[in-house]
Amino acid sequence: MKPAQLANQSSSWFGAEGPGWDIVISSRVRLARNLADYEFLSCLTPGRQQEILDKLSEAILSLSLGDEVYFMDVDRAATLERQLLTERHLISRQHAAGKGPRGVVVSAKESFTAMINEEDHLRMQVYAAGFNLGDCWKRINAIDDMIEQKVRYAYSERWGYLTACPTNVGTGIRVSVMLHLPALKMTGQIEKFVTAARDADLAVRGLFGEGTDALGDFYQLSNQVTLGVREEDVVRELSDNIVPRIVDYEKAARQVLLEQKPHTLDDKIQRALGVLKSACLISSQEALYLLSSVRLGVNLGRVPNLSLTTINELFLLTQPAHLQLRAGKMLDADQRDALRAQIIRQKLANN
Amino acid sequence: MKPAQLANQSSSWFGAEGPGWDIVISSRVRLARNLADYEFLSCLTPGRQQEILDKLSEAILSLSLGDEVYFMDVDRAATLERQLLTERHLISRQHAAGKGPRGVVVSAKESFTAMINEEDHLRMQVYAAGFNLGDCWKRINAIDDMIEQKVRYAYSERWGYLTACPTNVGTGIRVSVMLHLPALKMTGQIEKFVTAARDADLAVRGLFGEGTDALGDFYQLSNQVTLGVREEDVVRELSDNIVPRIVDYEKAARQVLLEQKPHTLDDKIQRALGVLKSACLISSQEALYLLSSVRLGVNLGRVPNLSLTTINELFLLTQPAHLQLRAGKMLDADQRDALRAQIIRQKLANN
Repeated sequence: MKPAQLANQSSSWFGAEGPGWDIVISSRVRLARNLADYEFLSCLTPGRQQEILDKLSEAILSLSLGDEVYFMDVDRAATLERQLLTERHLISRQHAAGKGPRGVVVSAKESFTAMINEEDHLRMQVYAAGFNLGDCWKRINAIDDMIEQKVRYAYSERWGYLTACPTNVGTGIRVSVMLHLPALKMTGQIEKFVTAARDADLAVRGLFGEGTDALGDFYQLSNQVTLGVREEDVVRELSDNIVPRIVDYEKAARQVLLEQKPHTLDDKIQRALGVLKSACLISSQEALYLLSSVRLGVNLGRVPNLSLTTINELFLLTQPAHLQLRAGKMLDADQRDALRAQIIRQKLANN
Repeated sequence: MKPAQLANQSSSWFGAEGPGWDIVISSRVRLARNLADYEFLSCLTPGRQQEILDKLSEAILSLSLGDEVYFMDVDRAATLERQLLTERHLISRQHAAGKGPRGVVVSAKESFTAMINEEDHLRMQVYAAGFNLGDCWKRINAIDDMIEQKVRYAYSERWGYLTACPTNVGTGIRVSVMLHLPALKMTGQIEKFVTAARDADLAVRGLFGEGTDALGDFYQLSNQVTLGVREEDVVRELSDNIVPRIVDYEKAARQVLLEQKPHTLDDKIQRALGVLKSACLISSQEALYLLSSVRLGVNLGRVPNLSLTTINELFLLTQPAHLQLRAGKMLDADQRDALRAQIIRQKLANN
């Protein structure tokens, strides 16, 4: 399978329905693992890195995951293809920009992805639409066990799973949710949320993880601590305690807006929809902001005849590499802005 | 007739068709006159001012102007009514804000208006839709002659007609056009136009004359010199020479935009239309800017099924006092913004 083939399709977790998906767009659990018989990547020759790539991809491709899986050679992929994989959250920006033998195994529905030779030998993620961390954990834990029957992980009785960066050592787990918090933003409470999250040792990031800004009211929230904790506890703390509280705050803020500033709210939503339906040029950043407002409107029942799925799909498909692979050629910024506007207009006109 | 009755209707010159009205919205000729037997206003008691008001209104109301005329007592009009008269360009801001016995005689089609006791005893204006200065001059000259048969103007063989402010002495004439110059603005040439106009002793002002900014790409251009010139020459210079040249520049700039930046142009136009069709709250200033872009779009044939008349009417009817008199009550800024948005949406949905 070539990455370009993904440019027109939505993924099973981004833009799909799931529990509580009005506020929690998606859930993710990631595990970092390394092979026992190899040093960390920075100490290996390309030849040894290739060995790891072969060994791990073979092991993972042989598993029965209940969904077709395929391998993509990231090192040999074109720049645009690597960018597309990043836009779909199948690989990290670091993996796209990296060097040497490296790849990714992806399941057809894109709910499972395993980066090989990113920072660690193996970084696996399971995604789910909506608020579904328990399910993600169950699935990735099972996959982890299956892989462990085929390869030997670097593991220390004292430290747990060993990782290239000490921030991942121990469980190697990162549990995260992608949140849509427009009402906390509009009511000026978002900074409070960010501060509280950081005080609780959680990381708050933008749509594309580490080092990216929160655009369009989307926030990725994840645990920071991996050492001296049990995986189940990390998952449970976020799943049962932290995320439900944030969801409640966002819901309360939405209620306040509905009751106290219905005109201002409708104005923001309807203007966003009006611009999306009529613009002839639109940047990806502006699209993100406007789609965010419309998404809020759909969730609050202020935009009849428009589905959340359509909005979520537009987030995915209007990204730069998606546009260019769809068009089958490189496009400059103006051309991308024109094509993006055209796709959005068409999609919204049909709804 | 009460000013409030005008709140729902368009006027014969603003929002109406006329020659070259895509760029020249309206033409106007104004004459300043004073009565020979009275001193200038600032030296008169209210009693004497009242005499002037009675004398002049009686004289003008008795004329056969081919259109019904009526008198409005500006001093006794409510604040909102005075504001409405200003918004319709029937009286100046100064006349609305003034003190003492004063009024205005207005023709039913609003193409003729005579302010009594503004800065001078009498300031008459004739308006026409589009580019039609010759016609305005012919009409106001005839009216001026008719009035002069009934009253005696302050006139000096040496100076001509005497006026309260020396800038009007001589002919007392002010010839002006309201221009819509969005393309000169978009192509960054508008400052050149303003500088050239001022170098040619012309005044460049905003929608509401002296002391107002050019909002929404509307510019009022008028002569400054009234002394030592013949009325016909002032009219001819603007009519045959200056305005046609500006119109040509604006047309050329529109052509450049169409040829070199069609996407940017369409984006601006369609976004403006999109926001106007969807906003739930809109300020008068934003409405002006957006309507200006849509007006350009209509003129360039980029917005089918929408008439210039509709757009021009919206400029007039969405002004603050119009909105409030239409609603029959005082509205705060939020309420005005909501009503304005509603009227615009309805008007554009029907077109």
